[in-house]
Amino acid sequence: MDTSTAAKPCFLPDGTVEVPAFALPISDLASPEAAAMQRLRATMPAFDAAGGDTDIAGRRIQINTYMAPQIARLRQEFAVDVARTTIGGIEVLDVTPAGGGRDPDRVLINLHGGAFCVGWDGVALVESIPIAALGNWRVVSVNYRMAPEHRHPAGVEDVAAVYAALLADYAPGRIGIYGGSAGGALTAQAAAWLPAHGLPQAGAVGVFGAGGVPFGAGQSPYVSGHIDASFPPPPADGSAPVDITHGYFDGCDPRDPTAWPGYHLDVMASFPPTLIITGTRAMDLSPAIYTNSQLLKAGVRSTLIVGEGMGHCYHYQLGIPEGRDAVDAILAFFRENLA
Amino acid sequence: MDTSTAAKPCFLPDGTVEVPAFALPISDLASPEAAAMQRLRATMPAFDAAGGDTDIAGRRIQINTYMAPQIARLRQEFAVDVARTTIGGIEVLDVTPAGGGRDPDRVLINLHGGAFCVGWDGVALVESIPIAALGNWRVVSVNYRMAPEHRHPAGVEDVAAVYAALLADYAPGRIGIYGGSAGGALTAQAAAWLPAHGLPQAGAVGVFGAGGVPFGAGQSPYVSGHIDASFPPPPADGSAPVDITHGYFDGCDPRDPTAWPGYHLDVMASFPPTLIITGTRAMDLSPAIYTNSQLLKAGVRSTLIVGEGMGHCYHYQLGIPEGRDAVDAILAFFRENLA
Repeated sequence: MDTSTAAKPCFLPDGTVEVPAFALPISDLASPEAAAMQRLRATMPAFDAAGGDTDIAGRRIQINTYMAPQIARLRQEFAVDVARTTIGGIEVLDVTPAGGGRDPDRVLINLHGGAFCVGWDGVALVESIPIAALGNWRVVSVNYRMAPEHRHPAGVEDVAAVYAALLADYAPGRIGIYGGSAGGALTAQAAAWLPAHGLPQAGAVGVFGAGGVPFGAGQSPYVSGHIDASFPPPPADGSAPVDITHGYFDGCDPRDPTAWPGYHLDVMASFPPTLIITGTRAMDLSPAIYTNSQLLKAGVRSTLIVGEGMGHCYHYQLGIPEGRDAVDAILAFFRENLA
Repeated sequence: MDTSTAAKPCFLPDGTVEVPAFALPISDLASPEAAAMQRLRATMPAFDAAGGDTDIAGRRIQINTYMAPQIARLRQEFAVDVARTTIGGIEVLDVTPAGGGRDPDRVLINLHGGAFCVGWDGVALVESIPIAALGNWRVVSVNYRMAPEHRHPAGVEDVAAVYAALLADYAPGRIGIYGGSAGGALTAQAAAWLPAHGLPQAGAVGVFGAGGVPFGAGQSPYVSGHIDASFPPPPADGSAPVDITHGYFDGCDPRDPTAWPGYHLDVMASFPPTLIITGTRAMDLSPAIYTNSQLLKAGVRSTLIVGEGMGHCYHYQLGIPEGRDAVDAILAFFRENLA
C-alpha cells in the first residue's frame, strides 16, 4: 500500500465519503500492554463473528470453549462462589465473593453478551466474576431466553422476572443491571421495560459495548469494520448484513421502543443513572455515543467512557490497563449510584 | 473507487493497521439537517486549517471575515450587549443578555478557538453570544496572548489574571470557564493552572473540540484526517506535521502539566466537574475521550458528549439539531454545576 502521498477523501453529492486507504499506527495514548496486544493482531486468526456454518448448538459450545481459559484465569485471580439456581423461575448463576462478607444491601443483575443467541454461561462468568469479587457484591447472571429458539421480548421478560423476584429482598435503588454487547443492549431494554410494566426503576444501569439503538446503526460499523474488523463492515453493495442474532428481532418494528429505546426521548427519560462504555475502534461506538447523547438530552445522568484505540467490549480484558480502568469505572459507578 | 468487494484491513507486526479504501455513507443516526450539510460538502472548497502562506496578520483578518456572516446571524437571533473592556489588565469582550436581568451571581469565562494564534475576536463572539443569551449569563471572553508573538504559558497567565480579578465579585464555585478548539485546550490548562498557583478552583469547566493532551495525539488525527479531512492527517512519511499554532508551544516539554494536564492524574484530580464535547469525525476525538477517561480515573465528575457523525467544534453550528443539542447540554451543565 502506497501511503507516501497524502490521499484525500472524496465527498460525493449524496453525502458519502470515499475514504482513501491509509495507515493507522498504534495510538500514542495506548498503554504499553495495549500496544503489545495490537502488535499481536498480525499473528491472530480472524474471528468470525457470525459463526460461519456452525449450527447454534455447536456455536454455543465453541464460544464456551473459547472463554474457558479466560474463566480459569479469572477464577484463579478472583475468589468467588458460583451457585446455579433459579430466581423468579429463571435459571441464574449466583456469583458471590468467596468467604462471605459481601454487601448485604445491594445486588447486580448481569446480562451476558453473545449476540442474543450464545454466551451462556461462559460470557456470563467472564462478566460476573471480576465485578462480584472486586465490588464485593452479589452478581446474579441471567440465563435469559435467546434466538433461534426465542424472539424479542423473551429475553427482557426473563430479566424482568428475575428483577421482580429480587425486589422481595432489595430496594430497587440498590439493584443495578449491566451487561456487555447483546447484554448491554438488553440492559437498555430492561431499563425501558421495567417502568413501562409497573415495576420500579433500577438504581443504575451499565450499557457496555452497546447502546439503546441497533448494532449496525451509525457510522461506526463502517469505520470499525475497516480499521478493526472484529466484525465485518456492512456489505458495500448495500445488501443486508448477516444477522448474527439468528433472528432474535425478527418481526420486531425497527423503532420498537422495547427493543431500541435509544430512539425515544420519552423512554430515555425513564432511565436511571447510566454508564456507557465503548471504544474508538468498536463497532458499537455510534450506538453507544448516540444513546449517551439522547440520555443527556432527556435529562438523565449519563457517564460515557470511550476507550482510546479500544475495540468491542474491551472491559473484558483485565490484563490491559484500559480494560482494568473500565472495570474500576464500573465499580465506582455502581458504588456511587446504588448508595 | 471499487468497493464492491469487502476489502479487509491488514494488521502489521508493528501494530499498524493498513486500512483499505471504503465508502462511508451518511450516518443513519444523523438529523436531516446534518445529513443535508454533509451532502453540501461535495460543493464546498477545502478549508486550509494551516492557513497556507498567509501571514499571521492576514490570517487573523481572514478568520474574522470568515466568521462575520455567522456573527451577524447570531446577533440577529440573540439579543446581547457586547462591551469591550479590560479585566485584570487583560482586554475582554463582556457579553451580556440585552435588556438586563442576567444571573447576578454567576459568570462564564470564554476562551476562543483559533489554534493559539488567531480567532480574536470573531471566534470569541461565535462562542459567547449564544451562551450569554440562552443561559442568561454574563460571558467574559478573553483576548489572551497568542503566537507567534507569545509562547505558552502567556495565554493561561492572562486567563488566570481575568479569573483572579473576577473573584472580587463572584464566588469561585460560581465561575465557569469554557472554550472550543485551542480555547478548549486552554480551558484544561486553566483548570490545571489555577489551583497550582494558589487560586481557588473554578466551579466547572467546559472543554470543547479539544482535550488536555495535544491536538495530534491518539488515533483520531489519522481517522478524522481521512474520513473528514477538515484537518490534514499526520504526514504518512512520519515527518512532523505543520505546526498550525505558529510555535505557541515551542520550548515546552511535551509532558509539561501546565500545557497538557491530561497526562497527569494528580493534576486531573484537581479539576472541577468537566464537560467534554467532541465528535466521531473530529480530529480531537482521541484527545477528548482520553481526557475524559483520565478525569474519571482521577475521581472527577466528567460528562462526555461525542456527536454522531460530527466534526471539530460542531457546537458552533446552531442550525443543526446536533449543534443545538450540544449548546443545550452546555447550558444544562453550567446550570447544574455552578449552583
